[in-house]
Amino acid sequence: MEFSIRAAVLEDCKDIARMTKELSEYEKVTDQVTITQKDLEQDGFSKNPFFHGIIAEVPEQHRTKEGHVKIGYALYFYSYSSWKGRAIYMEDLYVMPEFRGKGIGKALMSKVAQLGMAAGCTQLNFTVLDWNKSSMDFYLSQGCFDVTGDMGYHCMRCDGEALERLAQP
Amino acid sequence: MEFSIRAAVLEDCKDIARMTKELSEYEKVTDQVTITQKDLEQDGFSKNPFFHGIIAEVPEQHRTKEGHVKIGYALYFYSYSSWKGRAIYMEDLYVMPEFRGKGIGKALMSKVAQLGMAAGCTQLNFTVLDWNKSSMDFYLSQGCFDVTGDMGYHCMRCDGEALERLAQP
Repeated sequence: MEFSIRAAVLEDCKDIARMTKELSEYEKVTDQVTITQKDLEQDGFSKNPFFHGIIAEVPEQHRTKEGHVKIGYALYFYSYSSWKGRAIYMEDLYVMPEFRGKGIGKALMSKVAQLGMAAGCTQLNFTVLDWNKSSMDFYLSQGCFDVTGDMGYHCMRCDGEALERLAQP
Repeated sequence: MEFSIRAAVLEDCKDIARMTKELSEYEKVTDQVTITQKDLEQDGFSKNPFFHGIIAEVPEQHRTKEGHVKIGYALYFYSYSSWKGRAIYMEDLYVMPEFRGKGIGKALMSKVAQLGMAAGCTQLNFTVLDWNKSSMDFYLSQGCFDVTGDMGYHCMRCDGEALERLAQP
């Protein structure tokens, strides 16, 4: 199927918000999503953006029955490894279910890799849920490795009241 | 013990590189460190830096026998959660062994939390090695939680030849 990948613009935030919600349903964490279209607009498309995005789009004749032509996206930002240097982090990679198996996810991820290499990054990092076997298999087939499984790194987080307490001098 | 926390400047890169190497020895991955002082200078202190840093410093009278007064650091950058929004990522937190147990690591981490909250972040994220029980216990005591253990997220990476292959259109 024909599709194109392009940089996300402000006007894509409505569709990104829609697909982010779909992804959270797939990952069974809908109750944790607090982000809105307006947040995405402010955080990704003002000066010093917190993230960048790319969009996968299909021609009008392949639009979904709801009328969507923006059918996949990836968000990314630049990060850093104090051992290896410049890195790019892929925060989300999503393709709507009816458009899977057509190489669109691979093309989105490939674009993130290209953008990272162009910026001098030597690593592409991301996370995957351990029960999401099809995603894990896809990533492993692309030559990615499981840093948690192989080296023992655990993702840690501080938020809510704990973060407020921690921030108290 | 008296100490101060301040933003890192270009001239700190020599000491950051030294401590990054010490940290990698502690984490038993010295062979994986390719970063140099010059990389840190370029990547952290030019336009659009890939990371920011803070330094813990002690007065001259407490300098180490090698003459160091910069005895701890944290690196951080801003990141994004497509569900929760703005986040701050702490890439490294290190205090030289002879200065541990004095609240310096806590003060560095607290500063990163403050900087994150001031920028509108609702999460502080980082990783820890699963065998590093003293660090894990410290983070849990601060109200952090283990996203990998509790929710099943694995850190994934693509680098080297796999990254080059992936980036091919």
